[in-house]
Amino acid sequence: MRTRAAVAVQAGKPLEIMEVNLEGPRAGEVMVEIRATGICHTDEFTLSGADPEGQFPAILGHEGAGVVVEVGAGVTSVKPGDHVIPLYTPECRACPSCLSQKTNLCTAIRATQGQGVMPDGTSRFSTLDGDPILHYMGCSTFSNYTVLPEIAVAKVRQDAPFDKICYIGCGVTTGIGAVINTAKVEIGAKAVVFGLGGIGLNVIQGLRLAGAGMIIGVDLNPAKKAMAERFGMTHFLNPSEVDNVVAEIVNMTKTPFDQIGGADYSFDCTGNVQVMRDALECTHRGWGQSIIIGVAPAGAEIATRPFQLVTGRVWKGTAFGGARGRTDVPKIVDWYMDGKIEIDPMITHTLTLDEINKGFDLMHAGESIRSVVLY
Amino acid sequence: MRTRAAVAVQAGKPLEIMEVNLEGPRAGEVMVEIRATGICHTDEFTLSGADPEGQFPAILGHEGAGVVVEVGAGVTSVKPGDHVIPLYTPECRACPSCLSQKTNLCTAIRATQGQGVMPDGTSRFSTLDGDPILHYMGCSTFSNYTVLPEIAVAKVRQDAPFDKICYIGCGVTTGIGAVINTAKVEIGAKAVVFGLGGIGLNVIQGLRLAGAGMIIGVDLNPAKKAMAERFGMTHFLNPSEVDNVVAEIVNMTKTPFDQIGGADYSFDCTGNVQVMRDALECTHRGWGQSIIIGVAPAGAEIATRPFQLVTGRVWKGTAFGGARGRTDVPKIVDWYMDGKIEIDPMITHTLTLDEINKGFDLMHAGESIRSVVLY
Repeated sequence: MRTRAAVAVQAGKPLEIMEVNLEGPRAGEVMVEIRATGICHTDEFTLSGADPEGQFPAILGHEGAGVVVEVGAGVTSVKPGDHVIPLYTPECRACPSCLSQKTNLCTAIRATQGQGVMPDGTSRFSTLDGDPILHYMGCSTFSNYTVLPEIAVAKVRQDAPFDKICYIGCGVTTGIGAVINTAKVEIGAKAVVFGLGGIGLNVIQGLRLAGAGMIIGVDLNPAKKAMAERFGMTHFLNPSEVDNVVAEIVNMTKTPFDQIGGADYSFDCTGNVQVMRDALECTHRGWGQSIIIGVAPAGAEIATRPFQLVTGRVWKGTAFGGARGRTDVPKIVDWYMDGKIEIDPMITHTLTLDEINKGFDLMHAGESIRSVVLY
Repeated sequence: MRTRAAVAVQAGKPLEIMEVNLEGPRAGEVMVEIRATGICHTDEFTLSGADPEGQFPAILGHEGAGVVVEVGAGVTSVKPGDHVIPLYTPECRACPSCLSQKTNLCTAIRATQGQGVMPDGTSRFSTLDGDPILHYMGCSTFSNYTVLPEIAVAKVRQDAPFDKICYIGCGVTTGIGAVINTAKVEIGAKAVVFGLGGIGLNVIQGLRLAGAGMIIGVDLNPAKKAMAERFGMTHFLNPSEVDNVVAEIVNMTKTPFDQIGGADYSFDCTGNVQVMRDALECTHRGWGQSIIIGVAPAGAEIATRPFQLVTGRVWKGTAFGGARGRTDVPKIVDWYMDGKIEIDPMITHTLTLDEINKGFDLMHAGESIRSVVLY
């Protein structure tokens, strides 16, 4: 069949909107009509050429929601008509990682996904001339129709709006999951969030959901304050207004009883390796945990003195918020529908597929939290 | 009173054996007759001058065992005649750290301990001329008699031999505790131990106690192999015999089911920051934990790509094996007396106080695992 898609023809060039060929689902695969897709920094990272693993031509997009229209042989967990969210982190429930009960990083199809192809080694997309176009993160939600492995779709309730829950396919789950699954923040904890973009806001609302007692947001841009407060931030810190952001956070978190100070948990949502160091070092001696969420530039390294760890701090990271997609994503959709979490204020722009490059412009200009393309 | 002690008069000089004055215990303090003390790398680190926080003159030593001979006002938990192990990490059970239930790093007397004085800001030691001599790590076990805060002694059973259980005051607890308290290693886990000195051997026997399934020891010196095997090492790896120690460990830990490979847990017992990096990076994607035990040179930093953490590895450290001294040290003494752990083969040399500098020479020459001074 044919479908409209925004194709990343080469690094650094705008996406090109065109008709492409899409083969039907093979065994173990499903075809999904994407109804909405968010535009994420990771798409931008790859499109810009900064991603050393980026390959072209490809159909980007990994934060979508849609409807199953066809299933391949052997598919049992979803059927046509089911509403689904594509999963760039699949959940096969059979590989060593899924069975470890210690990680969400399913490895069943990792190798082929990284190569931009389906698990059988081929792409379902091609140009009208028949030249293959690569998949991206196993999702390619910048196409109106796409094909995914069965293990890479989460079935969700039918009454949830596509234009909001698509954001659960990446940003919402990454932020909230980092709090709940990776850090396991407890009621009353003191937490710091570095970077108040979309991920940072979702970390903040995850902290509110977890009952954190103090939620400090750190950003160079004071314009981020109001929205972060809306999601639960209790204190704002602008690093440009203090001598030493680590010392400032340590002071802010002291109590009459605890004169040591330091955050119980910190989250880096910037991708800046110097900020990652500050995020670790501002946590509490003895038990502070720092969670890296942001994606650093290729080759960048984090560093600290080992004394920081020997005195009890823990350095961790998270991918897709530690969420097992097929198991956890439907729950997060429920939380949204139940009003436990908010998404609507973060969807600042909705665009048509033809306007998709404007979404990247809005991101570059810092004007959007999340732009969503509606098909 | 007077007591014999080995005094660190200045950095880089041998200890001087002399009579010193020792004041009796003040309120909340106890006087202990030290019967045996180990000589640890940390003593050497300070004596050498490499420790930026080292102060002189001081009475070093922090790995002892002895008998309470006098208690100050208000002391209730021990009485004269009790056998105790001095604790450089005290356990007050009342400070924010002790009450957090998340760390063993009691902070009740941290500031004064770091300054080489008792909690009231003064030293109990002085020269026969009346010049003060500093305490060290709150212990000063290189003196036949010493004074400690009540919260810094662990009461242990009376039938345990001083010349063996003194090692529980640091090395044994550090190694075993890193496995049990910090990493919480589970039965069947695959673990790697970098550095097969005294701490490494104790990590290995901790892993055996925890039921680890694969215990890989890494050391440049093949002469370490036999002793490490005695304590439970199952595989030996000499980094000088392989191209890439990380890749080698990943390969060794692969199974027919798990072709990703990597250690579930790794422990750095070297203090070398490059080894610390290898120790992190050889752990399993998704859940590997690396525990830093070794003390790095002043100013040295650890580094890695944040991707290592984002893909699920966790970087931690441990001090005194995460053990709460008054609570856990008596249990470890029981384990020794019950034959659950071994200490005797690690006490390779016993010396008199007059011979204490020979203990440092043996350490430098790599001829001892642990030298113990018997008073």
